[in-house]
Amino acid sequence: MNSHEIFYKKELVKIEKKIQNLINGREPKSLYDPCKYIMSSGGKRIRPFLVVMGALAVGGKAKDVYNASVSVEVLHNFTLVHDDIMDNAEMRRGLKTLHIKYDVSTAILAGDNLIALAYLNLLKDCKGNSEKVLNSFTQGIIEICEGQSYDKDFENRKSVSIDEYLLMIQKKTAALAEMCCSIGGQLAGGSTKQIKQLESFGRNLGMAFQLQDDLLDITADQTEFGKSIGGDLVEGKKTYLFLKALEKSSGKIKKEFQLIIKNKGCDKKDIPKFKKYYEELGILDDTSKEVIKFTNKAIKAVNFIEDEKTKNLFVWLANTLINRIK
Amino acid sequence: MNSHEIFYKKELVKIEKKIQNLINGREPKSLYDPCKYIMSSGGKRIRPFLVVMGALAVGGKAKDVYNASVSVEVLHNFTLVHDDIMDNAEMRRGLKTLHIKYDVSTAILAGDNLIALAYLNLLKDCKGNSEKVLNSFTQGIIEICEGQSYDKDFENRKSVSIDEYLLMIQKKTAALAEMCCSIGGQLAGGSTKQIKQLESFGRNLGMAFQLQDDLLDITADQTEFGKSIGGDLVEGKKTYLFLKALEKSSGKIKKEFQLIIKNKGCDKKDIPKFKKYYEELGILDDTSKEVIKFTNKAIKAVNFIEDEKTKNLFVWLANTLINRIK
Repeated sequence: MNSHEIFYKKELVKIEKKIQNLINGREPKSLYDPCKYIMSSGGKRIRPFLVVMGALAVGGKAKDVYNASVSVEVLHNFTLVHDDIMDNAEMRRGLKTLHIKYDVSTAILAGDNLIALAYLNLLKDCKGNSEKVLNSFTQGIIEICEGQSYDKDFENRKSVSIDEYLLMIQKKTAALAEMCCSIGGQLAGGSTKQIKQLESFGRNLGMAFQLQDDLLDITADQTEFGKSIGGDLVEGKKTYLFLKALEKSSGKIKKEFQLIIKNKGCDKKDIPKFKKYYEELGILDDTSKEVIKFTNKAIKAVNFIEDEKTKNLFVWLANTLINRIK
Repeated sequence: MNSHEIFYKKELVKIEKKIQNLINGREPKSLYDPCKYIMSSGGKRIRPFLVVMGALAVGGKAKDVYNASVSVEVLHNFTLVHDDIMDNAEMRRGLKTLHIKYDVSTAILAGDNLIALAYLNLLKDCKGNSEKVLNSFTQGIIEICEGQSYDKDFENRKSVSIDEYLLMIQKKTAALAEMCCSIGGQLAGGSTKQIKQLESFGRNLGMAFQLQDDLLDITADQTEFGKSIGGDLVEGKKTYLFLKALEKSSGKIKKEFQLIIKNKGCDKKDIPKFKKYYEELGILDDTSKEVIKFTNKAIKAVNFIEDEKTKNLFVWLANTLINRIK
């Protein structure tokens, strides 16, 4: 482990402890047990770490933003709970999703309560003029809702442009990463210019992360990945790879991709065929290039950070996320 | 119309206009059309008016809290949308509920977005040190979620005490009225003592309102009421009247009430019989007395208001809500 990884793991322990204490002793159990269930189900906790990084980037201290960092993780988990209901997902992080473990009503209500708990925690780190922080936080939630709404729209649409797709993931995924960096920087007293750069880092990192996610669905190693390879094709998801393939293919192959839209998915046995199409059309390379493009943009954005060690932490995280295998 | 009623109606027009402008021009339509649908479906808009009253009580101006007043109405509508999913309700204010008009996923997401829109609007009226206002607002949401959770628990429980019921409605209904008065007063610069009194007014008014609601279910005039008389008995709801009847009855009549719990409701044709039991047991009188008790507490709490006209506005509202017929 390098020094950045050691630092990340150390911070994670502190954040994790705060997350576990979040819900202790609250009543009724019918509301808080489900909240606890989802908050204890693991995850990489990248988002809270981004809040800490945002603070460090402007010369602030991690300890001043731990409540805010918990709040973004709580918010992220709210989105998982409600999205899983909408997607009829049965499993998450190797456990039953909340609405399967309990029921849909409980999951709706637990999600709602998580939003409020997120605000409650964020407010603990707000000292004095906090409207800007809370505006960024709130704007983040609105973008997530808009992104999720576009995503649901796309499921039923015959055609989606690459630009529309990029706008959707920008809202659904990248906006939250942007917000995390932003509020960390704001709470630590960063300047308007610094905050803008931090937001650019988060947004571009989020874009790279999602495109890498799309890529891993087909390129990951089955034993490492944890999910079924090619799940997006089976579900007929209009990912970056899929939309790019539609754009670049022609004739019989294009028809086969169009059939996935019509049939709302393909047969599991056809995955190797479509993977081969992706390779032949250069889609995997195209997507990798996009991932690298967004990652480089992210890294460029944090050039302003004076402390070399902190700047390298940002570069390390960006590269780690590109190189992840699951 | 008396001068208070004229003032209420005038304020309502302004608030209504702001509510209608809330969502204009936002995308995607799949998210904002449902939000617009629920926000345009009417309602008495009592909660936004309580925010305005809170400001007036401490010598503030209505125009300084209109965004906050819109925000509590948006928040209230979020609870309606999500509660209607949980309750499988098909109609609301004479219109299809949101999840029936659209679908459950859309209703979940629209509700989530309304929470964020509520914060966004509240923040517009926050100038400087706003953590207290936002804490009150957030605490209000948490109480609503807890109240709704208790309410759902009670549906499946064999016995519920009167105290448990009162705690539930305090959280589910009264906490929001309390919060409305509180943030109105806080935004207008009220003192800690004034805010406490305003909160007491809102909380007690909310309790009176809910108990009156329970009472109207059986005592209202069918042609005026808009809903079926005795609906709570048919659905087997453990209302104040029902729990009080269980407490006061004995022998054969107590068994009949217990059977409603066991069967999760009674037959429509038995409503007159149970109404007669309520009368004979003195339940209607008991409930009326409770309504008056809470109303008087509310009115006593705002004795601090110096301006006579404003104080009378509070008294007028409290009395109007007691004397409402639907």
